[in-house]
Amino acid sequence: MEHPTAPTDDDATRQRSPVQQYIDRLHLAHCRLDGGDVATYIPELGKADPDWFAIAIATMDGQVYAAGDTDVQFTIQSISKPFVYGMALDDRGADFVLERVGVEPTGDPFNSITVDEESNRPFNPMVNAGAIATTGLLRGGTAEAQWQRIASGFAAFTGSPMTVDEGVFGSENVTGDRNRAIAYLMRNFGMIDGDVDEVLELYFRQCSLLVTATDLAVAAATLAAGGRNPVTGQRAIKEQHVANVLSVMQTCGMYDFAGSWTYDVGLPAKSGVSGGVIAVLPGQLGIAVFSPPLDKRGNSVRGIEVCRRIVRDFDLHPLRTHEAAQTDVISRRYDGRSVRSTRTLTLSECDTIEQQAHRLEVFELHGRLVFADAEQMLRAVLAVAPAVDTIILEGHRLAGIDPPAVPLIHGLARSLAASGQTLVLASFPPTDDAGKALVFDAERYPDLDVALESWEDRMLAEVLGPRDQVTVPLSEQELLRGLSAEAIAAVEGACTIGQLDTGAALAREGQDADSVFFLLSGRVSVWLRLPEQRHGRRLASFGAGVAVGEMALLESSTRSADLVLEAPSTVAELRVDELDALEREHPGLKATVYANLAQTLSDRLRRANGRIRALEQ
Amino acid sequence: MEHPTAPTDDDATRQRSPVQQYIDRLHLAHCRLDGGDVATYIPELGKADPDWFAIAIATMDGQVYAAGDTDVQFTIQSISKPFVYGMALDDRGADFVLERVGVEPTGDPFNSITVDEESNRPFNPMVNAGAIATTGLLRGGTAEAQWQRIASGFAAFTGSPMTVDEGVFGSENVTGDRNRAIAYLMRNFGMIDGDVDEVLELYFRQCSLLVTATDLAVAAATLAAGGRNPVTGQRAIKEQHVANVLSVMQTCGMYDFAGSWTYDVGLPAKSGVSGGVIAVLPGQLGIAVFSPPLDKRGNSVRGIEVCRRIVRDFDLHPLRTHEAAQTDVISRRYDGRSVRSTRTLTLSECDTIEQQAHRLEVFELHGRLVFADAEQMLRAVLAVAPAVDTIILEGHRLAGIDPPAVPLIHGLARSLAASGQTLVLASFPPTDDAGKALVFDAERYPDLDVALESWEDRMLAEVLGPRDQVTVPLSEQELLRGLSAEAIAAVEGACTIGQLDTGAALAREGQDADSVFFLLSGRVSVWLRLPEQRHGRRLASFGAGVAVGEMALLESSTRSADLVLEAPSTVAELRVDELDALEREHPGLKATVYANLAQTLSDRLRRANGRIRALEQ
Repeated sequence: MEHPTAPTDDDATRQRSPVQQYIDRLHLAHCRLDGGDVATYIPELGKADPDWFAIAIATMDGQVYAAGDTDVQFTIQSISKPFVYGMALDDRGADFVLERVGVEPTGDPFNSITVDEESNRPFNPMVNAGAIATTGLLRGGTAEAQWQRIASGFAAFTGSPMTVDEGVFGSENVTGDRNRAIAYLMRNFGMIDGDVDEVLELYFRQCSLLVTATDLAVAAATLAAGGRNPVTGQRAIKEQHVANVLSVMQTCGMYDFAGSWTYDVGLPAKSGVSGGVIAVLPGQLGIAVFSPPLDKRGNSVRGIEVCRRIVRDFDLHPLRTHEAAQTDVISRRYDGRSVRSTRTLTLSECDTIEQQAHRLEVFELHGRLVFADAEQMLRAVLAVAPAVDTIILEGHRLAGIDPPAVPLIHGLARSLAASGQTLVLASFPPTDDAGKALVFDAERYPDLDVALESWEDRMLAEVLGPRDQVTVPLSEQELLRGLSAEAIAAVEGACTIGQLDTGAALAREGQDADSVFFLLSGRVSVWLRLPEQRHGRRLASFGAGVAVGEMALLESSTRSADLVLEAPSTVAELRVDELDALEREHPGLKATVYANLAQTLSDRLRRANGRIRALEQ
Repeated sequence: MEHPTAPTDDDATRQRSPVQQYIDRLHLAHCRLDGGDVATYIPELGKADPDWFAIAIATMDGQVYAAGDTDVQFTIQSISKPFVYGMALDDRGADFVLERVGVEPTGDPFNSITVDEESNRPFNPMVNAGAIATTGLLRGGTAEAQWQRIASGFAAFTGSPMTVDEGVFGSENVTGDRNRAIAYLMRNFGMIDGDVDEVLELYFRQCSLLVTATDLAVAAATLAAGGRNPVTGQRAIKEQHVANVLSVMQTCGMYDFAGSWTYDVGLPAKSGVSGGVIAVLPGQLGIAVFSPPLDKRGNSVRGIEVCRRIVRDFDLHPLRTHEAAQTDVISRRYDGRSVRSTRTLTLSECDTIEQQAHRLEVFELHGRLVFADAEQMLRAVLAVAPAVDTIILEGHRLAGIDPPAVPLIHGLARSLAASGQTLVLASFPPTDDAGKALVFDAERYPDLDVALESWEDRMLAEVLGPRDQVTVPLSEQELLRGLSAEAIAAVEGACTIGQLDTGAALAREGQDADSVFFLLSGRVSVWLRLPEQRHGRRLASFGAGVAVGEMALLESSTRSADLVLEAPSTVAELRVDELDALEREHPGLKATVYANLAQTLSDRLRRANGRIRALEQ
């Protein structure tokens, strides 16, 4: 048997996914769950097939897992309420909306005609009175414009164009006397300004929007993702209003079942009389279930049970805690002794750095920096601070900075500055998770390497004076150690010595590698050209006393990178083919040079292995 | 002016902490917030000083920040309710407790005499009726034993021994007719079994326990930390019941202020008539505020406002979301081409591995693996799976595995096994965050290095046959490449060749390093002795064709590690001081050997730098 159309790679991957397999099993297991009655208070709703049953889950990157009747459309009913509330918050601001509609749950039924006696506000936007008042707040000016606002608002949440079930809409409109009474009461209290019939029509029409379980899962995932639809990428609601919507769903979303729901499931949720239920796991998932039979509180029997089961099977209750779950945001910490910039220094410079290395402490951070992490991190930094004078926070593995952590980092920067210590941020994200630019009282570098190099320069300048003025004669070059004065003189005779300016290239990638360069003064760096990056990637940087292009001594091949001067430099170039002549005059010279080269490489390898161990910590 | 006692380092660090400075400012700012009245319904409570004001915050590692009157003791009153509820859950199990006490909020006052008409249960354990019924459920058998249970239970939560304010207790007992009526009603409905007076006395006594704001912050932090007191390390409540307690606090903790509280603050909380408020940020913080003047709902005016302010200042509302906050649990991924075990292989072995390397994919995971991360991770793995035959999940930087993620990893393992692919777990935590052992259908290795070595062995055995049977003569040894047959013969003559068994040591750390070993067959590894580890740390492993102890060629010093055979091996040992004699007979031999050494080191350095770049990704 063949598939009529070959599944795409994505489909194949999804089919193999344990999540899809789980959803399929969940659907199968709950097909047998009976009980409850299809709502009939609007005649059109009574026509629903009690066996319709769909489950859908949408993730933060827009993956949708679905099982069952995911192509059956049904009217959204009360599940429209949180979304319309979100639209009203976006249109009018939270303060204005809060004056018109409260946020307190009520033990009364969803269609009760009661208001908060103190303020005459409807109790909350999840009861009909509140939802009608909320609908009246939407921007537009005309009923037609308001309807466009609603329809396009829902389309942003679901990612699909929306249509209305005209049969249900007509039925709602005809049988809506109780809601009509509520609407007039709302206008009596000044909670509706406009035409009652127009507002009611908008309200009935929004309740009659047709959706599938998949649409609702995506809409729920849009709330979970901070208001941007994870499938289409379109923003549906401002990030700042998502918590308001979810809070009201949390306390008022499941009619008078809020306590048990919070106890068993705990996710902000909303149900509707057509049999839909949505639940939101912030930052992770949107869940939707559709099954028309309702319990006596008006919630879908299978909808409740499937949500309960998902939360139990995966232990997703948001209030469960695990003592072992505390993350240490500091992934690695070490003092200056276990890290160097990639710049190659002479032995005496290395010694100098080594002697100052205790004055530097590096903290590498990882994961998402939340408030409690930042508190722990700043305590660790402040505890070590008196013993050092520079602290580097390295952040390239930070998954994000939660806004609550930002004031703590500010405070840390101020506290360190006050006691004369330097805070350095390397590879820190430019903004926090809310997109706000992070501006701290600290030095900033694009990566740890540049931050370390800057720190090393400061140490070297402090102890040895400015580095660019250092001159290292051939007799003191690492590669020529142990040669007699006569042999050094011979090498010098064989070299071409030149003074070159910043930016000059000693060699270019691809050129024949037939000479080695002794840096007598100045600085040179090694750049790898990357097709996708304009400026390439700096692999290493070298100061006076170091040989570059030394791989030419080992293999006759071509240069693997550009060698570019970073400062005015004096360079002695020795062609490799001169070595044999030098060896004939000074037997043992080659062995000494190669032994020195092996020694240099061995030192670098030791440092590289130390760095690997530090990174692997 | 001097401090009477010098502050400890910890104190000094805390004083510099921006969190402490924030709390101090917060306290100062709210000293001016007036309004509200001290409770007087129990005469003793009316004696409270309305200016008493304390704020305390406790972290998951037991750090306490506090400001104001943190040494003033007050009676715990209703804040005892969630803790006693937790004790009852531990003593009787959640199902049993749920039969006697519901979890639905009620719009009625805390001291109302109402029960759930369907089940005759009190609505929830945060109203007096529910709290009295809950108290009656505690284990003990006698009232005295039950009291010991309560007192020691609270001591576990606060970390301090508990005492009772006998004045308040007497006052409660005398004026408690309403509660007496409630208690009799509870017994009438069968929700209390025992002696009404005894249960009531226990109830009044628990309400009269004396606490400070610091005690309450630690007790709240104990809930935030999954039930283990973060200061003392003592378990106060089973982890599995913490979510139940927090759920009831979430819906019923702030009297009929739950909706606004959830909307503005969102943290599970409880207040009491003596002016205390606690709030819990799961996994992060416990917060306590103490200020006696109450608003008309019975909540501390400053308590509410301080909590609201903390949540607003640090954006701690648990339902806020940030679209940028999605963490990718995969910190690095690469195929076999960019990683090798630390074992040094011959060039031909390296080539073989290189040719097979596309069959391996490594995923390094970091952060805390929650459900949504696991879903994304398994999708990435399944998408690449058809193209490879081995997948390594490397987990040493995982901060933990949330139990919801576990079934997904199980499913992934099954799915890969079903299609004949090998799942390998390296450095995976032994348990999930709930402490449950993780047993997957996968190969497991203590670290990535060993996992890679095992994979390499499989590849080499597949292509080249069993490695331990390979013999590499001196003429093919890396260090002797390019030497004439005569020179090789001379080297062979200068060597001591021996056959040694598994476990034999070629050299020990600290011995003179005066020879180099050519491995003709077998395997040797390099071990660093670490004082704290019984077996040391394996730095590297070498197969036939490779020289070990080669650093002796560079510097006359001592061995820096043990060289131990991992298999029966044939080894040729060459003393370094033979080299000069060999050079005299075969001029240029030393230069060739050192050039080969430099080449080998250069190759290793290149690989090490590749590994560093991969690690730094």
